[in-house]
Amino acid sequence: MAMVEIIDTTFRDAHQSLIATRLRTEDMLPIAEKMDKIGFYSMEVWGGATFDVCIRYLKEDPWERLRLLREHIRKTKLQMLLRGQNVVGYRHYPDDVVEKFVELAHKNGIDIFRIFDALNDVRNMEVAIRKAKDVGAEVQGVIAYTTGKIFTLEYYMKKVEELLQLDVDVITIKDMAGLLTPKKAYELVREIKETYGVPVNVHTHSTTGMAVATYLKAVEAGADYIDTAISPLAFGTAQPGIQTIWHALPKAVGSHLDRELIHEVSRYLKKLLEEKYWGLLHKEALMVNPYVLKYQVPGGMYSNLIAQLKEMNALDKLDEVLNEIPRVREDLGWPPLVTPTSQIVGTQAVLNVLFGRYERITNEVKNYIKGFYGRPPAEINPELKKLVLGDEEPITVRPGELLEPRLGKCRKELEELGYLQKEEDVLTYCLFPQVALEFFRVRAEGIRKPEIPKTAQKFRVYVDGVEFEVGVE
Amino acid sequence: MAMVEIIDTTFRDAHQSLIATRLRTEDMLPIAEKMDKIGFYSMEVWGGATFDVCIRYLKEDPWERLRLLREHIRKTKLQMLLRGQNVVGYRHYPDDVVEKFVELAHKNGIDIFRIFDALNDVRNMEVAIRKAKDVGAEVQGVIAYTTGKIFTLEYYMKKVEELLQLDVDVITIKDMAGLLTPKKAYELVREIKETYGVPVNVHTHSTTGMAVATYLKAVEAGADYIDTAISPLAFGTAQPGIQTIWHALPKAVGSHLDRELIHEVSRYLKKLLEEKYWGLLHKEALMVNPYVLKYQVPGGMYSNLIAQLKEMNALDKLDEVLNEIPRVREDLGWPPLVTPTSQIVGTQAVLNVLFGRYERITNEVKNYIKGFYGRPPAEINPELKKLVLGDEEPITVRPGELLEPRLGKCRKELEELGYLQKEEDVLTYCLFPQVALEFFRVRAEGIRKPEIPKTAQKFRVYVDGVEFEVGVE
Ligand SMILES: [Co+2]
Ligand SMILES: [Co+2]
Repeated sequence: MAMVEIIDTTFRDAHQSLIATRLRTEDMLPIAEKMDKIGFYSMEVWGGATFDVCIRYLKEDPWERLRLLREHIRKTKLQMLLRGQNVVGYRHYPDDVVEKFVELAHKNGIDIFRIFDALNDVRNMEVAIRKAKDVGAEVQGVIAYTTGKIFTLEYYMKKVEELLQLDVDVITIKDMAGLLTPKKAYELVREIKETYGVPVNVHTHSTTGMAVATYLKAVEAGADYIDTAISPLAFGTAQPGIQTIWHALPKAVGSHLDRELIHEVSRYLKKLLEEKYWGLLHKEALMVNPYVLKYQVPGGMYSNLIAQLKEMNALDKLDEVLNEIPRVREDLGWPPLVTPTSQIVGTQAVLNVLFGRYERITNEVKNYIKGFYGRPPAEINPELKKLVLGDEEPITVRPGELLEPRLGKCRKELEELGYLQKEEDVLTYCLFPQVALEFFRVRAEGIRKPEIPKTAQKFRVYVDGVEFEVGVE
Repeated sequence: MAMVEIIDTTFRDAHQSLIATRLRTEDMLPIAEKMDKIGFYSMEVWGGATFDVCIRYLKEDPWERLRLLREHIRKTKLQMLLRGQNVVGYRHYPDDVVEKFVELAHKNGIDIFRIFDALNDVRNMEVAIRKAKDVGAEVQGVIAYTTGKIFTLEYYMKKVEELLQLDVDVITIKDMAGLLTPKKAYELVREIKETYGVPVNVHTHSTTGMAVATYLKAVEAGADYIDTAISPLAFGTAQPGIQTIWHALPKAVGSHLDRELIHEVSRYLKKLLEEKYWGLLHKEALMVNPYVLKYQVPGGMYSNLIAQLKEMNALDKLDEVLNEIPRVREDLGWPPLVTPTSQIVGTQAVLNVLFGRYERITNEVKNYIKGFYGRPPAEINPELKKLVLGDEEPITVRPGELLEPRLGKCRKELEELGYLQKEEDVLTYCLFPQVALEFFRVRAEGIRKPEIPKTAQKFRVYVDGVEFEVGVE
C-alpha cells in the first residue's frame, strides 16, 4: 500500500456537516497553529456553505476569517470548495464575478481550489478552473459521484478526460452522500490511475458507515489523497477521523503526521463541542442512516422530503415519493443529487405524487429543461421536454455566457451606500446582495457579534434505573 | 470473496451497547417473526448483561423472554453470550451452577453458546463448553482480542489450539473495544483458516470507526461469520448495521437476506427508539471515540476512569493514569481489558498514581495475584507477587474447582421463601441472590412492570440562527 496524503476538513466540511457550519473563527484560531504543524498536505478551511453562514448567521466577515487563518497557518496549504459558476452561492454568477472571486480568494490565502458542478457539466467549472490556474493556484477538478444506471465507469472516465483537458492538477472523486462503496472506489481509482496516472483524491462522508472501508480500498487502488477530519468533530455526516484512519491504514498514512498534536487538537475540540456547540450536534447527524443506502439519496434530501411531506400532511406518501425520485431523475437526464439539483428533483417528485405526474411543474424544472443549469448527464425525456418547451429549443451555450457582467454595478451601488471598505466587499455583495447589506449594516454600526448563548446544559436523570438525558438552559 | 453468514446482535449486544441493555421483550416480540424470516444464520438474543438487567431494572423474567423469543423465532438459530465460569454474572460460580445453566438455557431455546473468559484462560470456559457440547448445542469458542506486547499471532494461535482441543465448532474473535484493525483481522483470520480450516467468526464494535473496514478485510481473509445489527440500532458502540455491510460487501453477503424485511424492521426500530428509548441513546455512544485508539482501552473503561477521577477531584491526573495502565497490565501479566479485569486494572492504576505505585493494593488485585481469576496471559511481576503473597504460592488449579456446589442449597432456600415457581428460578437466585429476591417479591405481589415514562420530548429552538436541542419532560 503506497503512501497517502491527508487533507483535513475540520474547519470546513466537518463542521458544515455536523454542526450546521457554525464553528466561529474565534474558536478556530486557538488551535490553528497546532494544526499547521500536524503535517497535513492541506486544510480545507473555506468555501462551501461557510461563506453564506458567516455573513448570514455569524455576522463574521468570511474574508477576514481567511486572512486570519492564513496568518496562523503558514506552512500547510489552504484550500476551498468552489461550486464552479455558483461560486459559494446557489445560482450561476457572471464570469467577471467568478474570476474576481478566484483572484481575491487566492490573494487572501487559498492555495488550492476544489471545483465542482452539480451536473458534472465541465463548462460550468471552466471559467473558475482557468482563472485558478492563471493565478498559479493548484486545482482539484471534481467528479461528483452518484448512482443510477447511466453512471458507469465510462461515464466517469469521460468526465476525468474533460477535466484533464482543462489542466487540473488532481482529480477529486466527491461522494457527497456516502454512496461510494469500497468496491466502486477501488475500480474507479484504479481505472483513473492506470489510464492517466494523475493524482487522485477521494472525498466521502461517513453518513452510511462505509467511509473508512471505502478509503481503505481507494488507497489500495492507489489514491494519493483522502479527506479526513479530527475526531470528535468527525464521522457521522462528516469525514472519518484521522485518528481512526491512522489505525486502519497505518502503512499508508505513515509516520509524518504528529500524533501528539492531533491529540491536543482533539481534546480542544471535544471541550469546545461540549461547552459551546453541543446543542447543534444532533444524534441524527451521528447515527448511520440506512435509508440513504436504500433510496440512494443524500441524507439531507431524505430529511428534507420528510419535512416537506409533514408540512403538507402527506407523510404517508413518503414511499411513493422515494420511488418517484429515480423516475424524475431519469426524465431529467439523471442529474446527480446535490445542491441545487437535489431540491429540484425532490420537489418535483413530491408534486408528481400529490397531483399526478407533471401535472404541476416547478419553475426550477422549467429552467432546468431550458438548459439554464447546464447540460444534464443524459438526454431529457423528449415528451417532458416537449411539454415544457413546446417548440422552443433549450439553450446550448454555457449558461454563464448569458449573464451580464455585474462587478462594476455592484461596486458602484456599494460605494453609494457607503459600505465599501475593501474590494472583497464587492464580491460579498455580488454573491448575496440582501444578506450582505444586512451584514454590512451590522458591521458599520459596530454592533457586537451576537454571542452564542451557552449551550443547553446536560443532566442525567435516573427514573427506576432508566437513564434520561435532559437539557436545560 | 467467499460468502459470509450474518449473526444478528440487535436483541443483545446492540441494545446493550447503545441503550444500556434496556430493550424490553414487549418491544422485541412485534418484529421477532419478521427477523426470523430475514435469513440470518443466527440471532444473539440472550446472555451478556441482558440477564442481570432484566431482573434488576426491567423486572422481567429473562427465562420468560427466552421462551417467548423462541416461540416467535422458529427458523433462525438463537445464541447467547456466556461468560464462561462467570455465566452471566461477574464472578466465578460453582460447576453445578454453570452446568445447570447451560442445560436450561439450551432447553429453553439456545442453539449456540458463545463462551469466553476475561483472561483467555480456557480452563474457565471448559465446564461450560463441555456441557454445551453434551446437550448437543453448537459452541463458539472465544478468543478475547486485546493489544499489548505479548499478544502476538502466536499467542492467539495457541489459544485457538486450546479451544479446538475442547471441540468447539467455531472460533470467535471477540474484539470488545474496537481495537482490531483491518490488517490484524486479515492476518489473524487467514492464519486460523490456513492452519486449522475451522469456521471463524469475527465480532467487533464500531466504537473506533474501523468495524466495517475490519469486517471487509476479515471476509477477504476467509471469515465465515460476522456480527452485525440492524440500523438504526447499530454502529456507535455497537456492531455495524447490516444495511451498510450489504453495500460494503455485496458479494460476500449475497442475496439470501431479505432486504425488504430488514427495511421494515429498521423502520420499526427507528420509531421505537425515537418514541421510547431516545433519552437512553447518548451522543457519546454514537460518536467515534478517538481516545480508545490512543490509549488502547475500551470506551467504557475510559469514561469510568474519568468519572472515578472526577469524584476524587483528581481529573488532572488522567494522563498519568492512562500511562500507568500498560504498566499495571504488564505487572499483572497482561490481562485483556474486559469485565472484570478492566475495573481491576483501572482502579489499581488510579491508586498507583495517587498514592505511589502499589502503596495501596485492592483486594481484587490480591485475589487476582492469588490466582482466583485464573491464569493471566503472561507471568506476574515477581516483585509484586512477593509483595502480595509473601511466601505463599498462588493456586494453580482451575478456580472453579475450589467452589462448593450451590444448586441444592439455593433450591432449598427458595422453596422456604415460597418463591420457587420453576427450576429456572433456582439459577436466577444462585446467580444474583439479592437482586433475584427483590425480583421474585415483585413477581409474587403481581406488581405491574414499571412503565418506562415517555422519553424526554425534543424541541428544536433557534436563537439567532443557532439551533439548540432542548429536552422537556
Ligand atoms: Co463533503
Ligand atoms: Co460485543
